[in-house]
Amino acid sequence: MSQASPRVLALCGGVGGAKLVLGLSHIVAGEDLMVVVNTGDDFDHLGLRVCPDIDTVSYTLAGVVNPETGWGRAGETGEFMAALASLGGEDWFFLGDRDLALHVERTRRLRDGETLSDITADFACRLGVTVNIVPMSDDPVATKVATKEGELAFQHYFVRERCQPAVTGFRFQGIDRASPHSRIVEALQNPALEAVVICPSNPFVSIDPILALPGLREALTRCTAPVVAISPIVGGAAVKGPTAKMMAELNVAVTPAAVVTHYAGLLEGFVLDERDAACKRTIERLVPHVSIGDTLMVNLDRKIALAEQVLALAGRCVAA
Amino acid sequence: MSQASPRVLALCGGVGGAKLVLGLSHIVAGEDLMVVVNTGDDFDHLGLRVCPDIDTVSYTLAGVVNPETGWGRAGETGEFMAALASLGGEDWFFLGDRDLALHVERTRRLRDGETLSDITADFACRLGVTVNIVPMSDDPVATKVATKEGELAFQHYFVRERCQPAVTGFRFQGIDRASPHSRIVEALQNPALEAVVICPSNPFVSIDPILALPGLREALTRCTAPVVAISPIVGGAAVKGPTAKMMAELNVAVTPAAVVTHYAGLLEGFVLDERDAACKRTIERLVPHVSIGDTLMVNLDRKIALAEQVLALAGRCVAA
Repeated sequence: MSQASPRVLALCGGVGGAKLVLGLSHIVAGEDLMVVVNTGDDFDHLGLRVCPDIDTVSYTLAGVVNPETGWGRAGETGEFMAALASLGGEDWFFLGDRDLALHVERTRRLRDGETLSDITADFACRLGVTVNIVPMSDDPVATKVATKEGELAFQHYFVRERCQPAVTGFRFQGIDRASPHSRIVEALQNPALEAVVICPSNPFVSIDPILALPGLREALTRCTAPVVAISPIVGGAAVKGPTAKMMAELNVAVTPAAVVTHYAGLLEGFVLDERDAACKRTIERLVPHVSIGDTLMVNLDRKIALAEQVLALAGRCVAA
Repeated sequence: MSQASPRVLALCGGVGGAKLVLGLSHIVAGEDLMVVVNTGDDFDHLGLRVCPDIDTVSYTLAGVVNPETGWGRAGETGEFMAALASLGGEDWFFLGDRDLALHVERTRRLRDGETLSDITADFACRLGVTVNIVPMSDDPVATKVATKEGELAFQHYFVRERCQPAVTGFRFQGIDRASPHSRIVEALQNPALEAVVICPSNPFVSIDPILALPGLREALTRCTAPVVAISPIVGGAAVKGPTAKMMAELNVAVTPAAVVTHYAGLLEGFVLDERDAACKRTIERLVPHVSIGDTLMVNLDRKIALAEQVLALAGRCVAA
């Protein structure tokens, strides 16, 4: 297939990132938008390859995501899980009946030798998604969470243990042998690229696995397009998920400034939530261009509005 | 686990066999009944190990079978299959949402090194089944159907092609390297065994794979208990499935006598349907003890009545 180079490249994890990506897709259509998705939380479960972030992004862009949870499919049923539990199977990770088709078919195709990226692109196409969803790598990377109770596989930490163990660090198993997908590197090298967006995803477990891919950080630094990030921290808390809890456990201040510092050397722009307007001056000392807005994305209009603001900020970075 | 030797051992395939086995289970309780199930139509599908006959027998004995089809679960839903079809997956073999749990969990446990017989026993226990369901072998055997259009894997012939191709023969791939399950051989050697029942299943693709296991036919011949069969042919037709069509294509008369001839050297007793009473004399020239009854098993009472008749016939064989 012939593939155009994107104008906008977004790095994202699951629910929060998917919301912004949905907003972006309403402004930057089709192949002009490339969504690079974290695969560090992919895992083998019940003998199936489960890719939570890819699926959340795919379902969100396809308009079939469960609006209550932000992941899984709307109107999903749980007959499989109930039957599995009655057979003594592991039921701590919910897989809906329709969602299951994705995991079964993906696992079969991976075993048949297809790449995760080809399968992801085909599923997205069949779901009616027109923007490009690209797994960060076709090589397996597994995020491990170091906790005071020992190291846990990511989904064991995240879902089974409900993020309760106190975090002390992270490890991305396999990252040294993983290559960023070639289309990501090509997109970053292309002078037509207008913006790289780091979505308001968890910096530690959604964005860091992408940034840790060999050569990826250098490619971002060399890239002519501005890199802009959106704060995942609003009013001292994370909008969703364990970001704030992790920051506190890692003895990092739970502030947007700490997020900017986390991305040190990468950012030219940063979107701060209006609830944190008071710290704009602090942020401006850390990153050249700062924009203030409503980052909560409670409905589609707000998602699109935030996406517009992000792209406007990237434009300001270029103009400066 | 300590396991008592059974009083009755039944050889069976799917729907028809399961009906008689259900009847038997109301007379011969718990470990006194061992059901030896054909695994020749097991196959790998969508990356999952599917064992149609084992599951039909398990669901039937558990009282959760779909009463309309005789296979699958009652009140089953098809969300998985619908989603799979929309992703371009193979949807010619229906797997219901609840049924799917069995295949996913069985596949996972087989990969973890458990035997099919242990997994089958555990699932049966969890489904509330108390009689012993034993796969004919823990070694994989795959029935291949030779047809005028070439050789087909059994489920491709049976489900995908709806038994349309004309049959010329059968092959049981892997049978030379397969051993009958040790519990079957032990049961046949035990003098406490009172009857071996060949259920009214398809002789070619349900019973023959069992009989073709190395040593099994000899063990049956040496066994002190009488071997009795129930005619799967009633009034010149099969009650269900392609038995009659296969017989015709193989130039075998579609008669109970042809079934008895097929089992030549094994039978001491045969149950003929009352609709075929006219051929009782013919059958009596082929097998020592013949009983006439209603073999259609349209409800539980008829299943139990036929089971009683079968065991009474076995008793007559012993008394003679």
